[in-house]
Amino acid sequence: MKNQKQIPASAYQSGTGFINHYQNLIKDVVIPYQYEVLCDNVEGVEKSHVIANFVNAGKALRGEDIGDGFYGMVFQDSDAAKWLEAVAFSLTVYADKKLEAKADALIDIIAAAQDSDGYLNTYFTIKDRDKRWKNLMEGHELYCSGHMMEAAVAYFDATGKDVLLNVMLRNAEHIYTHFITEKNEGYPGHPEVELALLKMYRTTKNQHCLDLAKHFLDVRGVNPHFYEEEAKLRDWTVWGNDPYDHDYMQAGKPVREQTDATGHSVRAVYLYTAMADLASEIEDVELQTACRKLWESITQRRMYVTGGIGSTVLGEAFTVDYDLPNDTAYAETCASIGLMFFASRMLELDTNGEYADIMERAFYNTVLAGMQLDGKRFFYVNPLEILPGISGIAATHKHDLPERPGWYACACCPPNVARTISSFGTYAYGENDTTAFCHLFAEGTIHFENGLELLCETNYPYAFTITYTVKKGSKALALRIPNWSTQHSILVNNKTTDYEIRKGYAYLPCVQAGDKIVLSLDTSVHHIYTSTKVAENTGCVALQRGPLVYCFEGVDNDNDILSLSLTENGQITINPYAEDLLCGTTTLTVSGWKMQQTEALYSIDKRPEEVPYTLTAIPYYTWGNRGLSQMRIWMTDK
Amino acid sequence: MKNQKQIPASAYQSGTGFINHYQNLIKDVVIPYQYEVLCDNVEGVEKSHVIANFVNAGKALRGEDIGDGFYGMVFQDSDAAKWLEAVAFSLTVYADKKLEAKADALIDIIAAAQDSDGYLNTYFTIKDRDKRWKNLMEGHELYCSGHMMEAAVAYFDATGKDVLLNVMLRNAEHIYTHFITEKNEGYPGHPEVELALLKMYRTTKNQHCLDLAKHFLDVRGVNPHFYEEEAKLRDWTVWGNDPYDHDYMQAGKPVREQTDATGHSVRAVYLYTAMADLASEIEDVELQTACRKLWESITQRRMYVTGGIGSTVLGEAFTVDYDLPNDTAYAETCASIGLMFFASRMLELDTNGEYADIMERAFYNTVLAGMQLDGKRFFYVNPLEILPGISGIAATHKHDLPERPGWYACACCPPNVARTISSFGTYAYGENDTTAFCHLFAEGTIHFENGLELLCETNYPYAFTITYTVKKGSKALALRIPNWSTQHSILVNNKTTDYEIRKGYAYLPCVQAGDKIVLSLDTSVHHIYTSTKVAENTGCVALQRGPLVYCFEGVDNDNDILSLSLTENGQITINPYAEDLLCGTTTLTVSGWKMQQTEALYSIDKRPEEVPYTLTAIPYYTWGNRGLSQMRIWMTDK
Repeated sequence: MKNQKQIPASAYQSGTGFINHYQNLIKDVVIPYQYEVLCDNVEGVEKSHVIANFVNAGKALRGEDIGDGFYGMVFQDSDAAKWLEAVAFSLTVYADKKLEAKADALIDIIAAAQDSDGYLNTYFTIKDRDKRWKNLMEGHELYCSGHMMEAAVAYFDATGKDVLLNVMLRNAEHIYTHFITEKNEGYPGHPEVELALLKMYRTTKNQHCLDLAKHFLDVRGVNPHFYEEEAKLRDWTVWGNDPYDHDYMQAGKPVREQTDATGHSVRAVYLYTAMADLASEIEDVELQTACRKLWESITQRRMYVTGGIGSTVLGEAFTVDYDLPNDTAYAETCASIGLMFFASRMLELDTNGEYADIMERAFYNTVLAGMQLDGKRFFYVNPLEILPGISGIAATHKHDLPERPGWYACACCPPNVARTISSFGTYAYGENDTTAFCHLFAEGTIHFENGLELLCETNYPYAFTITYTVKKGSKALALRIPNWSTQHSILVNNKTTDYEIRKGYAYLPCVQAGDKIVLSLDTSVHHIYTSTKVAENTGCVALQRGPLVYCFEGVDNDNDILSLSLTENGQITINPYAEDLLCGTTTLTVSGWKMQQTEALYSIDKRPEEVPYTLTAIPYYTWGNRGLSQMRIWMTDK
Repeated sequence: MKNQKQIPASAYQSGTGFINHYQNLIKDVVIPYQYEVLCDNVEGVEKSHVIANFVNAGKALRGEDIGDGFYGMVFQDSDAAKWLEAVAFSLTVYADKKLEAKADALIDIIAAAQDSDGYLNTYFTIKDRDKRWKNLMEGHELYCSGHMMEAAVAYFDATGKDVLLNVMLRNAEHIYTHFITEKNEGYPGHPEVELALLKMYRTTKNQHCLDLAKHFLDVRGVNPHFYEEEAKLRDWTVWGNDPYDHDYMQAGKPVREQTDATGHSVRAVYLYTAMADLASEIEDVELQTACRKLWESITQRRMYVTGGIGSTVLGEAFTVDYDLPNDTAYAETCASIGLMFFASRMLELDTNGEYADIMERAFYNTVLAGMQLDGKRFFYVNPLEILPGISGIAATHKHDLPERPGWYACACCPPNVARTISSFGTYAYGENDTTAFCHLFAEGTIHFENGLELLCETNYPYAFTITYTVKKGSKALALRIPNWSTQHSILVNNKTTDYEIRKGYAYLPCVQAGDKIVLSLDTSVHHIYTSTKVAENTGCVALQRGPLVYCFEGVDNDNDILSLSLTENGQITINPYAEDLLCGTTTLTVSGWKMQQTEALYSIDKRPEEVPYTLTAIPYYTWGNRGLSQMRIWMTDK
């Protein structure tokens, strides 16, 4: 039932533009840096210990002294998995024998940490083997398995090496035995294994992987009391999560009956990704309908303009409709990555530009903001407003850090960013037998399995002309026209051409080797307004150019952004692209007003004087790269 | 060193206006209702059990069966104390033998719950006598003693009966023995006993009361690690408070060195009240200077326009400068009552209208908003914005209830409102040998100890002419000119007169029996602007008339206040006083704009159309009296 499917990571080779810059950064800085962190070789950042955990788990299995035992979160294993997956994707773009050797060595360590029955988890293997599978709510065993399965599939696709894939097939079989053969009740506290099992199934055709994925989705929420019952059978917890908060665990109803995005936001979108993927795999219309409702719940009522989701720190969770505070936002980097997953699977079900629009919004804003421009520091939380003196300090704002730390005790986001960027082609391009789909605008070469080979040239997201040269083959070509592009043109070999616009895509019936297709999108700056149902943004406007949402930082604006407002429909100048600024960016000069500061907290009948002021805006993804500074996206518009 | 001092509650008899209406409500509804709640006779509200606790504590002391034991918070006793204090104040205004008999009976029950050594606390007496004085951080023993001392003093002043006063003198002696004679270290986790001991001292002249108050203030924060050390000596907690959070307990530094208002906001202002009171009692300039810094910290950087303080639910606490969220505000009713205490003591030290301005702001807005107009329901938390569907529901907004509950498990606020209203005269009027001071505008008769007797006639806060008739005596008269009154006039016997304005007070050198003084204040509606340092209110305005801050409720404005904004300096009509609306009020009709609702969460380049709209504003203290509705004080101003 897939309308079209994602291309594999290996089918896309980035060119010399923006995506290539980021993929190089992942290869040159992020992957090596994160490896050193995983090995605990970086001073001044949170300890990882993840590789040591695998080593020690192997020792535990062999009855040897376990050394310094386990350290870290219950899901620490997944950091190694995400790193391996990023490495795998990167290897498809850049051959690197030394890196591959490092990965192989790590895989051997992981393989040695697998129990004889196929179980693989360092926390329980080192700490207490008897606690295996007794705390699905908090234990993250299935979550860690899922990430390692994703890594195994990616590594096999990239290198043809099946050591990890076989480890994870044995692990999947162990899980199948426990949950299906032996009929143990339960479903993952943190969904992830479902989407991973579907990847395993597509790569290996192992039917048990598909059955297991379907099983976990089918049973979820059918007995919403499962976690309570599970909790009553043990005398220990990991974090003291509340087993009665069914919606928090996306377990209040069977998944096909769920309509509102609830609970922990990363868990939610990982679950919905698997639901959408399964819906297309087994042609389950009911599941697809549920996915659409959940998609609408997120994107029409519970999403920031940056593509950030999960607005509260309390449980890292979705809250209720239209509750989107800017300064206390959570908007976890991983959640926006998960939103990209969900969007890409929805797009496979229904080629509707709406899905790609959101995928692009999440990527170019929240996901990229999650990483310092130098690739060495990361945000877990992505607020839309930063107030030095309050952000990161006040009790309600402790999580909204004004500057990126080097690593986190809970380090899910940094390697997640790495694997997402290094597999960018899978989100950008799709295909079916008849058509090649360009969802996002990513320069480079794309080898579609349907035989088409395309060269894409563009300086997107800072230029809005995209040139596609057909290198080989002959197929229909579908080009997404973003929802922010109020005008566009398409030339084929310098001539206008007939094409049909359907659901946000321009369909060119047939392009062939030698054709040059030039898509020109809207280059203007757009004004974004929020529904008046969002209290936080009444009377405010945000600026966006292409996919980039802009923000205002104190450093460019006299360190006084709270005194500034924009002139309604005022002059906006798009400055020339500056190579040297923030790794290359285009700033905006915007006309507005500056209100005079008053000493008094409250002034009676003395409206502070306002004078014309010229503001400077930068893309949101570049914020926080020049030291401590105020930051704001939504500005008063008058 | 007192410039002038508060009059006693008994010196003020309210007339037939606004204050009288409220004092009647306290007498006719609140006191009887709260008594029934204390007796657990009211269905559908949180259980109190406070009287039963005293009965059971008495049984425990006599070795009898303790019945159903203790129920409630560790500070449950204080609810009875605050009720008794409200009764005492009310009896000074309205003789009521039946009520007095009820109070006498309760006092007998309390007296019977006092241990032979003078200790009085039902929680520890019933639960575990051995835990007495071992958890000053959380145990609230001194807090409960303080409230009972305040009740004892008020009841003695009102009735001349000294049963409770003698109980509390014995209790004070017990505390003196424990902390001073026996040199036990420590100071109250929740300040309150300090201000109460000063009241005890003034009524009884018992030197130990003054010494104890001074002792607790002197030792506080000198050893900031006291609570940690205390915690290490026991294996139990009440709530698991963090003994290392010194600032939260106002114990990070000696009180004379404290400069920022920190921690639990009620504790803070109760502490600062005692500091100011002691400073005047013993003429301690260093203490007075510290009080002034703390006052500025609160009122210049950490206070809502409603006089609400303590902006976060996390610890019911102050946060950092300029962190004043409207929708997640805490702004506890008790904290604003405490701010009135602090203001009234500062005013005694320095007759500066600034203190009375804040006292008035807190009273007419947050304190009155704390009670339903019918006197039967109460707010603990007083947000400046209510969003049905989010407020009271979203995890970060659970405390911001959109409607007042009947009673709370932690019921500190309802009886606190009762005692404050019934002793309103003590805040409104002050005196010294030469002068009678009118700080607030409260109709009725005032018998100053200096010999002057005044009749005050006014419909304040809805009319702004205040007529004073001198009934007896001859003194200087000081009339406060509020900071919001941009113009005023004073006529004596229909003629202009010479007077001097000093620090917000008009001083009439001599008024005498027969004189009629008419003060006319500004009747217009004022626009309030916030410092641009407060992110929450950029581009916004609030309206105030007299002391009343206005708000906009959905019920008056098409249930769509988030779409509304005010026209900069637009037309405002002050509607005629409406007897039947919200127990009598004056609404404002305000010209503004209504933005069209859009279905889309975000709209690109489509600024929602705005049409002129006429808004209706009501005084903030009346909000939430007509069912579930949106509410907002700060409106976009353009």
